[in-house]
Amino acid sequence: MIPRDRPFDTILVANRGEIALRVLRSCRELGVRVVVAHSTADADSAAVRYADTTVCIGPPAAGKSYLNRAAVLEAAKRTGAQAIHPGYGFLSEHPDFAEACEAEGVVFVGPPAEVMMRLGDKVAARSSMAEAGVPMLPGTLHPVTSEQQAAEAAAEIGYPVIVKAAAGGGGRGMHVVHDPDEFSEAYRRTTATARTLFGDGRVYVERYLASARHVEVQLLCDTHGNAVHLGDRDCSVQRRHQKLVEEAPAPGLPDEVRDRMGDDVVRAALVTGYVGAGTFEFLVDDEFNHYFMEVNCRIQVEHPVTEMVTGIDLVAEQLHVAAGAALPFGQDDVRMTGTAVECRVNAEDPDSDFRPAAGLLSEFTPPGGAFVRVDTHCRPHYRIPAEYDSLLAKVAAWAPDRAGALARMHRALGEFDIAGTGVHTTTRFLRNLIGQPVFARAEHDTGLVTAILSERTQRS
Amino acid sequence: MIPRDRPFDTILVANRGEIALRVLRSCRELGVRVVVAHSTADADSAAVRYADTTVCIGPPAAGKSYLNRAAVLEAAKRTGAQAIHPGYGFLSEHPDFAEACEAEGVVFVGPPAEVMMRLGDKVAARSSMAEAGVPMLPGTLHPVTSEQQAAEAAAEIGYPVIVKAAAGGGGRGMHVVHDPDEFSEAYRRTTATARTLFGDGRVYVERYLASARHVEVQLLCDTHGNAVHLGDRDCSVQRRHQKLVEEAPAPGLPDEVRDRMGDDVVRAALVTGYVGAGTFEFLVDDEFNHYFMEVNCRIQVEHPVTEMVTGIDLVAEQLHVAAGAALPFGQDDVRMTGTAVECRVNAEDPDSDFRPAAGLLSEFTPPGGAFVRVDTHCRPHYRIPAEYDSLLAKVAAWAPDRAGALARMHRALGEFDIAGTGVHTTTRFLRNLIGQPVFARAEHDTGLVTAILSERTQRS
Repeated sequence: MIPRDRPFDTILVANRGEIALRVLRSCRELGVRVVVAHSTADADSAAVRYADTTVCIGPPAAGKSYLNRAAVLEAAKRTGAQAIHPGYGFLSEHPDFAEACEAEGVVFVGPPAEVMMRLGDKVAARSSMAEAGVPMLPGTLHPVTSEQQAAEAAAEIGYPVIVKAAAGGGGRGMHVVHDPDEFSEAYRRTTATARTLFGDGRVYVERYLASARHVEVQLLCDTHGNAVHLGDRDCSVQRRHQKLVEEAPAPGLPDEVRDRMGDDVVRAALVTGYVGAGTFEFLVDDEFNHYFMEVNCRIQVEHPVTEMVTGIDLVAEQLHVAAGAALPFGQDDVRMTGTAVECRVNAEDPDSDFRPAAGLLSEFTPPGGAFVRVDTHCRPHYRIPAEYDSLLAKVAAWAPDRAGALARMHRALGEFDIAGTGVHTTTRFLRNLIGQPVFARAEHDTGLVTAILSERTQRS
Repeated sequence: MIPRDRPFDTILVANRGEIALRVLRSCRELGVRVVVAHSTADADSAAVRYADTTVCIGPPAAGKSYLNRAAVLEAAKRTGAQAIHPGYGFLSEHPDFAEACEAEGVVFVGPPAEVMMRLGDKVAARSSMAEAGVPMLPGTLHPVTSEQQAAEAAAEIGYPVIVKAAAGGGGRGMHVVHDPDEFSEAYRRTTATARTLFGDGRVYVERYLASARHVEVQLLCDTHGNAVHLGDRDCSVQRRHQKLVEEAPAPGLPDEVRDRMGDDVVRAALVTGYVGAGTFEFLVDDEFNHYFMEVNCRIQVEHPVTEMVTGIDLVAEQLHVAAGAALPFGQDDVRMTGTAVECRVNAEDPDSDFRPAAGLLSEFTPPGGAFVRVDTHCRPHYRIPAEYDSLLAKVAAWAPDRAGALARMHRALGEFDIAGTGVHTTTRFLRNLIGQPVFARAEHDTGLVTAILSERTQRS
């Protein structure tokens, strides 16, 4: 009805929660029919409610539904979906699934399997970055498989070091070691976690930066050799390597550093043959040196802040690129305006060590108004399934300047009305956090949340 | 806590519904305490819930509460509010109230009383526009008070003409006359309405444009002689002179026409000594000639679309200007990006001639996601008072281009979940309307809704 290029007739969304709804929304706007594949626990979810077609692919356990490759592919074929959007998490970074899609003639919305494989392996990724001339912290160039080899590498790199699972990602499977005496224990714990989580016990060792910011660059590439970056985001506010607050652009970063990071990412994208949306994560030290950490070969939770400062619908561009279209803009066409901040509101109890606190929502009224965006799959009377992550909603606020965006976020979080038996949320914790003077002055690093929590413990 | 200029310590919001919440939100973001003055019918409203202080100013009838000048002023003085924001409607365009505020040392957030008085009188306004060189349709330069005088003027102007109440506004108190034989009847009806609604029977006569667009220009002026326009909006989609869909910028308008209208408005603002936010409404004919209609001396319902394309918080700027601050930007700093569309979702039944259909809301889940803004005071279990207007929510959508904004709006309206016993809404009607090819091609004029409704009647 409304004229715009339609990348596919039908797309299957192989995810749940807010990101399933997010993807569905862009599909709708492009006139694409949406099939939502869901577990039995999500039969009443928002994405299922809005879908054109729904397919139940299995019981709640992810391995039996959202990670069930055969069931997802079968659902796509049965419903005539030409493409599968994996969202984030679940099947989004499994090269074997991307390969299986290709074998069945279904488009996987993401980079080619071989690119995912290479960048998903932290050691192989480091080798590609070296080739592209992207700066990295000193570390092992190959995965290490013996404790002795690893300890020797650590000694050569210099303490503190971080031991990371080669196949890891998303902040899981890593341990910081400050002292050679602690190395043995950290090595054993990392390899054990790596085997359990990723089925791959290989690790690598890297210099650890005690005081650093997490800054990442959003990338978008098509199949015609065009690569464009959409600026940076600061995601330094983390608890146990899980991001809580993200913002675009990264505050306080000199423009020449910003430009250098963007150039690095575009160069690395061309070297690796990247296609689709992706994120290059960096650590930035006190002297504004940036060091490559990892690539996320998918849309990220925090993508809305980039959308708000660029005006670009990242999911729509993912779909266009997946359908073979060329990017409609070049690097010079991308304009960043203002600052956007996002807070992840989780169903967790900050007063009980952030234990998951899901349940039946009796009240759920998100904030609204000028320059506020809410991405949520929740609504009143929705029962939050205990089987999945605790993300209830992403609240994002934009303003011409950072102070205005923080004031707006503070206002928005204050409006959020969520209640339910047994339900606790991080809303107040987040509101307090963004009001911290050190955060308002953008002088924080990745240690902010730990510092706040330990101060709170001492006071109480 | 968050650094930004705080225009006042405390502001009283003398309004209700979504606009009371809208004003409250900007106050919050500026660190201003908010007093909400409300009628007994609105004791459970969203603005009351979020206010720092609330004052019940009377029973539901507007004359006894929201239009009760003494009660509103008394509430401001009692709560230590330094300023009163009147929103739109109610006391927003009553110069006598602005004067009373001034006499009591309370800042009225709006233009000075004498400016409101002059621009609120359609005849006096036309005389100011003539002085500023703003184009107008041929019409009487003075109010006419006898039918004979009016009929002679109409004959001289040439039919069709429109007879308007001199003190009118907001689309009320006007009649179109196509034939001299109908003039007498139209004159009598207009004067009668004008006496009833505005307590002032004077009318004036103007050429009527059968095919025209409603295009308006947003203005912002400070007390330091700075006047800036924030671009135009098309509000041609109207039913009985009530706007249903608004968009910024006006589609299909040549840039030179846009610039000329903006220049006219800024010139007229300086001639009239305008202060604050205001809107100049024009009719634009098929040859893109623009003709002054009226000035709205207040924030308008449709202001969000201008906020979305400019990034400027109009209510915050109103408050800064009212506190005596200079505008922080000049004309050249104002950048318009993309297109924003707004739909007014009313509690009305389109299948029963849009009769009000309020009641108790059982479900109320507004749309969300990328580039969608919802302004609403409603929530689940809210009982919509029958005493006031039927506006439930304003849904606005932005995109880099108009087609994208319409697709996004279509998606957003489709998500809106509103239910309740006896509750009907215009959501589906609006969704169908923005999908009309003539609207998608932006070839519509102010007759669009009438055309759709008469076609529907013929079909059924």
